[in-house]
Amino acid sequence: MHCRITALFPVAVLAGALMLPATAACGADTLRSWNIGPTKLAVIQFVRDVTTEGGPDYVPPEGRIAVFSHDGTLCPELPAPAEIAFLMDRVRALAPKHPRWKSREPFRSALAKNMNGLAAADTRGIMELEGATTGGLTTDEYEETVLRWLEKGRNPRLARPYVQCGLLPMQELLDFLRASGFTIYIIVRGDEAFLRAWAEKAYGVPPAQVIGSSVRTRYALRKGKSSLTRRTDYDLMDDGPGRPQAVFRAIGRRPIAAFGNADADREMLEWVASGEGKHLALLVHHTNGGNEFAYDRHGTFGRLDKTLDLARKSGWTIADMTKDWNRFFAKTK
Amino acid sequence: MHCRITALFPVAVLAGALMLPATAACGADTLRSWNIGPTKLAVIQFVRDVTTEGGPDYVPPEGRIAVFSHDGTLCPELPAPAEIAFLMDRVRALAPKHPRWKSREPFRSALAKNMNGLAAADTRGIMELEGATTGGLTTDEYEETVLRWLEKGRNPRLARPYVQCGLLPMQELLDFLRASGFTIYIIVRGDEAFLRAWAEKAYGVPPAQVIGSSVRTRYALRKGKSSLTRRTDYDLMDDGPGRPQAVFRAIGRRPIAAFGNADADREMLEWVASGEGKHLALLVHHTNGGNEFAYDRHGTFGRLDKTLDLARKSGWTIADMTKDWNRFFAKTK
Repeated sequence: MHCRITALFPVAVLAGALMLPATAACGADTLRSWNIGPTKLAVIQFVRDVTTEGGPDYVPPEGRIAVFSHDGTLCPELPAPAEIAFLMDRVRALAPKHPRWKSREPFRSALAKNMNGLAAADTRGIMELEGATTGGLTTDEYEETVLRWLEKGRNPRLARPYVQCGLLPMQELLDFLRASGFTIYIIVRGDEAFLRAWAEKAYGVPPAQVIGSSVRTRYALRKGKSSLTRRTDYDLMDDGPGRPQAVFRAIGRRPIAAFGNADADREMLEWVASGEGKHLALLVHHTNGGNEFAYDRHGTFGRLDKTLDLARKSGWTIADMTKDWNRFFAKTK
Repeated sequence: MHCRITALFPVAVLAGALMLPATAACGADTLRSWNIGPTKLAVIQFVRDVTTEGGPDYVPPEGRIAVFSHDGTLCPELPAPAEIAFLMDRVRALAPKHPRWKSREPFRSALAKNMNGLAAADTRGIMELEGATTGGLTTDEYEETVLRWLEKGRNPRLARPYVQCGLLPMQELLDFLRASGFTIYIIVRGDEAFLRAWAEKAYGVPPAQVIGSSVRTRYALRKGKSSLTRRTDYDLMDDGPGRPQAVFRAIGRRPIAAFGNADADREMLEWVASGEGKHLALLVHHTNGGNEFAYDRHGTFGRLDKTLDLARKSGWTIADMTKDWNRFFAKTK
C-alpha cells in the first residue's frame, strides 16, 4: 500500500463511520473526487473485501485483475474518441492520393467529419481506416506517428490534449486499485496499438495491458535488421461477446472487476459478474452536460440503452457523474 | 534485488575477476548451475549493462522484457512436449466415439504415438487435436482437465512430472532476470491455455505472460451465469515470422532478450537482436544425451539447423548444455 495521507480528518471520519481498516480508509482518501455515497462505498467495500487476508472474500494479488473500457469510461468519447480524430486527420492528409475515398465509406464519413456515419461504420470501419492510412509503416514508425499527432491533438469541446482527458475520478480509481494490488487492463474498441502508444503516460498502464483490435504485421529483414510492418488487414475485436473473449485471450483469467459505460460492454460486465467469489461490475453514466457530456440511450459513440436497465436490475454499481463526482478533470499541465 | 548470498567465496572471486557490481555478482551466485565461462559471463554482462543507472546501455524496468521459447528452451521437448502427451491421451480416450480418427491425420499419428507424424502435423495439427478433443469445455473446465492430467503426467524418459521438468539453469536465469527487474514472457507452440494452466506453478509466470496459439471461444449466458466455451477452431501462431508477430501483438514492445532453441525461433531472435540498444539473443543447444537429450539438425521436435549456423555467424550467445551447465534438474518434490 502506497498512500499519501494528505487530509487526515475526512479519512478518519469516513473510516470511523464505516469501520474500515487502513487500506480502505486510504482508498476513501484517494477517491477524493467521489462524493460520499453508495457508489463510493460499494467500491471501497469491494476492495476491502478482496484484500482482507483471512476474510471470506480474500483474493490473492495474482487474481486481482480489473478491466476498464477506454472511451467513455476512462475519458470522454464525445465529440469523438481520440483515435477517430486521428484517423480523420490521416484520411484528410492522404485523400489527394486516393480519389475514390470521396465516395466510399468509411472514408467519406471521415472526410465529412460525419460522426453518425463513423459510429455506424463500427470497429470494422475504424480498423479499415487504420489499415488504409497506416499500413506500410513499421510498428516503430506508427508509434512515432501517433505520438507526434498527440502533441497537438485536443478534444475540441473540452479544449484539452487527449493525453490529459482522463476523467479524474477514474484516474483516482486506477490509483486506488493499483495501490491495493490490482493489475489494470484497458479494453479499447479500435486498434490497440493506438492507445498502447500513450496509455502508460495517460493512465500508467503498460502496452501489454491494453487490449483491442489489431492491424496485422509483416516480418521483414532488410540489411540484417528486422522489423514488423503494418499491413492493411486486421484482427477484429467485436463489441459485446467479443470483449470477454478478447479479455480472456489476453489475460487467461476472468477479472474480478469490470468498468464500462455502454451496451458494447454488457457481456464483459456480465461475465465478470458471473465469476466465483466477490466481484465489482460498474457502469459509468454520463449525466453531466455542464462538466462533461450527458447522453445514454441516444449516444453517438458509447450508446447505453439496455445495459442501463440490466445494470439496475442486476444490482451492478452505477456511477452517476452528477451525483457521484465532484471534480471531473485534473488541471492541465 | 533479492539475492540470497549463500556462497560468498565464488561470488567474490567472480565479481573481482570481472569487476562486477553487486547486482551482477548476485547473478553470478544465482546462476550456480552455469559453469564460469563466456556464456555465463555474456548473460551477466548483459544484465549489468541494462541495469546500470547512468550507464550508456541502461534500460528502465518497463523496457526490460525477456521472451523465452518453452519446449526445448525452458524444459526438455523429447520424447514429446507435455501438450502432445496430453493430446495423445485425450485422443485415445475419445477415439471409441470417433471411428474415423483411425484413418485421419493428425489423429492417426496421435493414436499410434507416431512422433514423426505429430511433428509433421505442426502447430496446426496440435490445434486441430486441441479443438477436437477439448472443444465444448468451458475455459474453467479445460483448466481443471489440464491440471488433473498433470497430476500423473510424466516425461517417460526422465521419469519426472512435467511440472518439474524445468531445466534448472534456465530456472535460475528466470530468477536472475526477475530479480533484475525483467518481465518474463513465454512463447509456446501449441495452445497457450494449456501452459497457462501451470506456468505460474512451474516457472512463476502468470497466464497473461504466456503467448501461443489459441482455441477460439463462444460466449454463453445460462441461467444468469455467463461463461466462455472452447470451440473447435483456433487462431494459429505460426513458427518463424509468426513468433515476433505474436510477441508484438501480446506485448506491444520489442523485448531486449530472447531465448530459443530451434529454427522455429530464428525470426524472434533476429527481431530482438535488431532492436535499438543492448540486447541478448541466446540459443540453447541440446548436447547432453546423458543428462538430457542430444540433438540439433535432426531433432524430431525442436529441429535446430540453419539457426545454429546463423547464431554462430551473428555472434549470438549459445548455451552448450555440456560445456555450460553443471546441473540439469532440481530435486523432485
